[in-house]
Amino acid sequence: MKNIGVFTSGGDAPGMNACVRAVVRSGLSLGLNVYGIRYGYNGIISGDMHLMKSYSVSNILQKGGTILKSARSEEFQTKEGRKKAYEQLKAKGIDGLVAIGGDGTFTGANIFYEEYGIPTVGAPGTIDNDLYGSDYTIGFDTAVNTALEAIDKIRDTANSHDRVFFIEVMGRHSGYIAIHCGIGGGAELVMVPETSTTIQDVIDTLNKGRDKEKTSAIVIVAEGDEQGNAHEIANKVMAKLPKLDIRVSTLGHLQRGGSPTSLDRILASRLGLAAVEGLINGKSNVMAGIIDDEVVYTSFKLAISKTKPISNELMRLVEVMNN
Amino acid sequence: MKNIGVFTSGGDAPGMNACVRAVVRSGLSLGLNVYGIRYGYNGIISGDMHLMKSYSVSNILQKGGTILKSARSEEFQTKEGRKKAYEQLKAKGIDGLVAIGGDGTFTGANIFYEEYGIPTVGAPGTIDNDLYGSDYTIGFDTAVNTALEAIDKIRDTANSHDRVFFIEVMGRHSGYIAIHCGIGGGAELVMVPETSTTIQDVIDTLNKGRDKEKTSAIVIVAEGDEQGNAHEIANKVMAKLPKLDIRVSTLGHLQRGGSPTSLDRILASRLGLAAVEGLINGKSNVMAGIIDDEVVYTSFKLAISKTKPISNELMRLVEVMNN
Amino acid sequence: MKNIGVFTSGGDAPGMNACVRAVVRSGLSLGLNVYGIRYGYNGIISGDMHLMKSYSVSNILQKGGTILKSARSEEFQTKEGRKKAYEQLKAKGIDGLVAIGGDGTFTGANIFYEEYGIPTVGAPGTIDNDLYGSDYTIGFDTAVNTALEAIDKIRDTANSHDRVFFIEVMGRHSGYIAIHCGIGGGAELVMVPETSTTIQDVIDTLNKGRDKEKTSAIVIVAEGDEQGNAHEIANKVMAKLPKLDIRVSTLGHLQRGGSPTSLDRILASRLGLAAVEGLINGKSNVMAGIIDDEVVYTSFKLAISKTKPISNELMRLVEVMNN
Amino acid sequence: MKNIGVFTSGGDAPGMNACVRAVVRSGLSLGLNVYGIRYGYNGIISGDMHLMKSYSVSNILQKGGTILKSARSEEFQTKEGRKKAYEQLKAKGIDGLVAIGGDGTFTGANIFYEEYGIPTVGAPGTIDNDLYGSDYTIGFDTAVNTALEAIDKIRDTANSHDRVFFIEVMGRHSGYIAIHCGIGGGAELVMVPETSTTIQDVIDTLNKGRDKEKTSAIVIVAEGDEQGNAHEIANKVMAKLPKLDIRVSTLGHLQRGGSPTSLDRILASRLGLAAVEGLINGKSNVMAGIIDDEVVYTSFKLAISKTKPISNELMRLVEVMNN
Repeated sequence: MKNIGVFTSGGDAPGMNACVRAVVRSGLSLGLNVYGIRYGYNGIISGDMHLMKSYSVSNILQKGGTILKSARSEEFQTKEGRKKAYEQLKAKGIDGLVAIGGDGTFTGANIFYEEYGIPTVGAPGTIDNDLYGSDYTIGFDTAVNTALEAIDKIRDTANSHDRVFFIEVMGRHSGYIAIHCGIGGGAELVMVPETSTTIQDVIDTLNKGRDKEKTSAIVIVAEGDEQGNAHEIANKVMAKLPKLDIRVSTLGHLQRGGSPTSLDRILASRLGLAAVEGLINGKSNVMAGIIDDEVVYTSFKLAISKTKPISNELMRLVEVMNN
Repeated sequence: MKNIGVFTSGGDAPGMNACVRAVVRSGLSLGLNVYGIRYGYNGIISGDMHLMKSYSVSNILQKGGTILKSARSEEFQTKEGRKKAYEQLKAKGIDGLVAIGGDGTFTGANIFYEEYGIPTVGAPGTIDNDLYGSDYTIGFDTAVNTALEAIDKIRDTANSHDRVFFIEVMGRHSGYIAIHCGIGGGAELVMVPETSTTIQDVIDTLNKGRDKEKTSAIVIVAEGDEQGNAHEIANKVMAKLPKLDIRVSTLGHLQRGGSPTSLDRILASRLGLAAVEGLINGKSNVMAGIIDDEVVYTSFKLAISKTKPISNELMRLVEVMNN
Repeated sequence: MKNIGVFTSGGDAPGMNACVRAVVRSGLSLGLNVYGIRYGYNGIISGDMHLMKSYSVSNILQKGGTILKSARSEEFQTKEGRKKAYEQLKAKGIDGLVAIGGDGTFTGANIFYEEYGIPTVGAPGTIDNDLYGSDYTIGFDTAVNTALEAIDKIRDTANSHDRVFFIEVMGRHSGYIAIHCGIGGGAELVMVPETSTTIQDVIDTLNKGRDKEKTSAIVIVAEGDEQGNAHEIANKVMAKLPKLDIRVSTLGHLQRGGSPTSLDRILASRLGLAAVEGLINGKSNVMAGIIDDEVVYTSFKLAISKTKPISNELMRLVEVMNN
Repeated sequence: MKNIGVFTSGGDAPGMNACVRAVVRSGLSLGLNVYGIRYGYNGIISGDMHLMKSYSVSNILQKGGTILKSARSEEFQTKEGRKKAYEQLKAKGIDGLVAIGGDGTFTGANIFYEEYGIPTVGAPGTIDNDLYGSDYTIGFDTAVNTALEAIDKIRDTANSHDRVFFIEVMGRHSGYIAIHCGIGGGAELVMVPETSTTIQDVIDTLNKGRDKEKTSAIVIVAEGDEQGNAHEIANKVMAKLPKLDIRVSTLGHLQRGGSPTSLDRILASRLGLAAVEGLINGKSNVMAGIIDDEVVYTSFKLAISKTKPISNELMRLVEVMNN
């Protein structure tokens, strides 16, 4: 292996830059040329690939977003698109890829590998923490801390006005961010897609709090909860508890940005090195992850098909902390 | 004057606690007893008033929200309510009030003073900075910095994905927060209630940016803009520019909370002292403010009726910075 | 078991409050009375113990420091002191203790248990992360993130002036904070007590950087490094490299305070519950910890005698990232 | 005027980048070519000057430090050095300069102007806020907020351990940062170069606090205080009050870095535009500043020779807030 390419794809996540930096510097350190590919798979297809030097990634460790840009590629989902991609890689002599992204990224990588056999190792970059094969994904810890800072601020105003707030955090298919925010934010209740919570459960929790003379409350809602989004849930609750002063806040895209936390910078650095070493050691079609503080490689197939369950211990913790 | 009361009323703002602390400690320092009144005017009516010691306000200088709680009082808007309030104050021997709040707070204080003549001095506590009689209101600087941190994060993801973001900030009747966020956040455009911006203006600005190969853009929208809220505006723009990747983020209540900035802590401390000194010096029915770094007292009437215009220099600055 | 006490002892750490809250609410939830003991072991001796309600720990989850105060107790190191402590506990009917602290705390707890047999479970609260029996200690993640924010700021000025900074972080006997800050802060070198780095090594690293046209550099020094503190090391380097613009920054006590991160809040909450459940299930003389995401109990003896080695993988990562 | 140059000089300050951006974009907007000059006066002498485009300053608004680098120039203090500088400017056709910096920067600019008559307008960029001719200097508000965040954290640990902390903030000749931190941080005492405070005053303040059962205390020390630095002062106090648990923290260089606050970004943007407009309108040998929210131009001579006194009102405020 002589020349490798690195790209970011799918929704951006804090720490992607730290991972790009790690791939570039690990590659250089291990004697490889490293190409930075812009705009994910689109950049492979269009040949938007540039040789990186050590200084190309100076001072990006602490930067949110991704200097390589990210995009979802429709063209790469076609056979023709992937053929073009392959030809571009061949033309540049790129014989290995590091793909930083989530589900969709690895699904594409898997197909591409099966068709063209270019060795690819992934690094899990998504704030959702929903990939099997790594305890944490790059960006998750930052997203939770960002959301938590917002929740702390909202609690100030909830307390001052004796209000109930429904706060929606990211997580279309996964309640990881929500449950961590719930415990960290001292929420009275957490609503996640993985478990079923009825509107009556919400009402019971709020009433229980008022019985104990709690004057304000926070309910964390994962955007993909089965009861709807935070606005919809709040409306249903208001219909039944018209006396409460209920407000809604949807945290939205600010959860994606910002300078990565220590944990995300270190995780991203470790996985960047692990991905390059994986390629050199002949691994392919796998995602590098960290489980129990050890680097492990999990096949793309498994990483995207198996689900990481939400922890019962954490769900219970929310409840106990409300006593 | 022997006994004074202090309360917070209307929407809470960061720095209200710093102001409460300043009123209590200034009062004690100047030989007064100070009562903390909870829940704004409601607390006067219900007699929810408590003698404060110096330690009652320890460690609240840096806390968001208000330990005295805030509320809007419907009862105080009735003659009967105000009569009850007066009787409660008499019963406690309270012969002066410090009211921390905004428009509504001072409107009530003005009526109450005209009816019962209890000396009252206000301190401007509102994130909107829309009160005549003070360059800054308590909470404004914090709210802008909080919004700006969110905008910085959103720009990370806007840049990574070449997106256009419409970001809605607080300001139902005033564009102060929006214009400050616009300059501080490097926005391409700012939409405020004070000036008229058409959808075509938005489109022109976005097109101009793309002509210069800017790949992403931020538009700041004050919630009270005449074109609608950020979602409505974004929808109108999307209808005309379907190729753009347009997203919306409404920052919402997180702008109200959080630890106050240095500016807000100092402003709140100065105004707390100024309010107490005003009372002692026989001032009443006025709001203490700071103009050109000097304490000034403005009649409640003027403070709530006169509008503080948005600065043309700042509006122009947004435009120039886009070149 | 009916009545338990909880206290914090030794150097304070962010998240101690979150753990106190978790102990109180877990205790109440499981049918126990919980006493908050102030000033660590001194408070047991003096009987400074107070029955806690659920609201006693409201809104402390996000607060730095410890509402129970902390202190090192000389009296508890005497036989007489411990006898008094025992009598106070008996008088209150306290039949179990949760001790939140580090090395010294658990050493005392161990002796006390051997002498008087009062069941005690510990929770590791120390920013140093130097306790065997838990992957993370409460406060470590916050301390690292706090230090990292400072390092990011210092890098701004280092870059602007082409300077070399020696930044000293906490860690008298352990390089955990330093190594995490080194990777997270993109440092050129990390000096920790666990490994030997000569002044010549520092000089070589700085020269290597300059050969690659790096104009600034950051060296992280754990306070307990064998070459001395950051000032001493910087002086030795300056003597050999007089042309470099070398500066020193000692981060100091700010690393101990601040609102805990998500990770610390969750860790503290889990360990607070685990400590109470441990007591109820008959565990004693052990520290609750989390290893590989599972709650484990390690004897105090082992926790304080066995050392947690610094990771070679992380040490190597610093080096690779400098290529 | 056709071609102008912009540079940063002296100690770096947050917001310098925002000002560089404003100069570049204002210049382009007003039809000028703008050269970015690196390393302050050294860059003029060596011809390290580069034509800037609008995108050259993209995404630097929120960045700490200065992309143009800063340096103190010994060569520029010689006649010969200034002659070289003049020749370089002539060669490039640069007929106007914007100098962003402090005292030293404007002293140099003043001499250079008198010798060679190249129109120069300054923008005050220094965290010390010690320049006559502007209410605020660029970087001051950020430095105070950065220090305040650190002080808040240190108060957590001071409270937990009942300690007295002497915290040293920047300000070799000026107590501006110290007094703002003192009020914002709720300090018991502030020691600044402008006023004389004896060690006995410190002791009296600490004793007074203990009489009121305050268990911890914060003393803010400006680095240039006449009693010495924080360590020296603490040692003198410890000698007289050996029972107190006294600690010292020197905040140091972290006060120089970090993303600028809203106030600094807006101030820097306004002053960048004002500087360019000043040049175009024939102003020279002046510093642009903002007094009472209006742009004003003050001669370099006045700006560097006249001192901005520390506010008595603020000094008194510290005292009153301690009651």
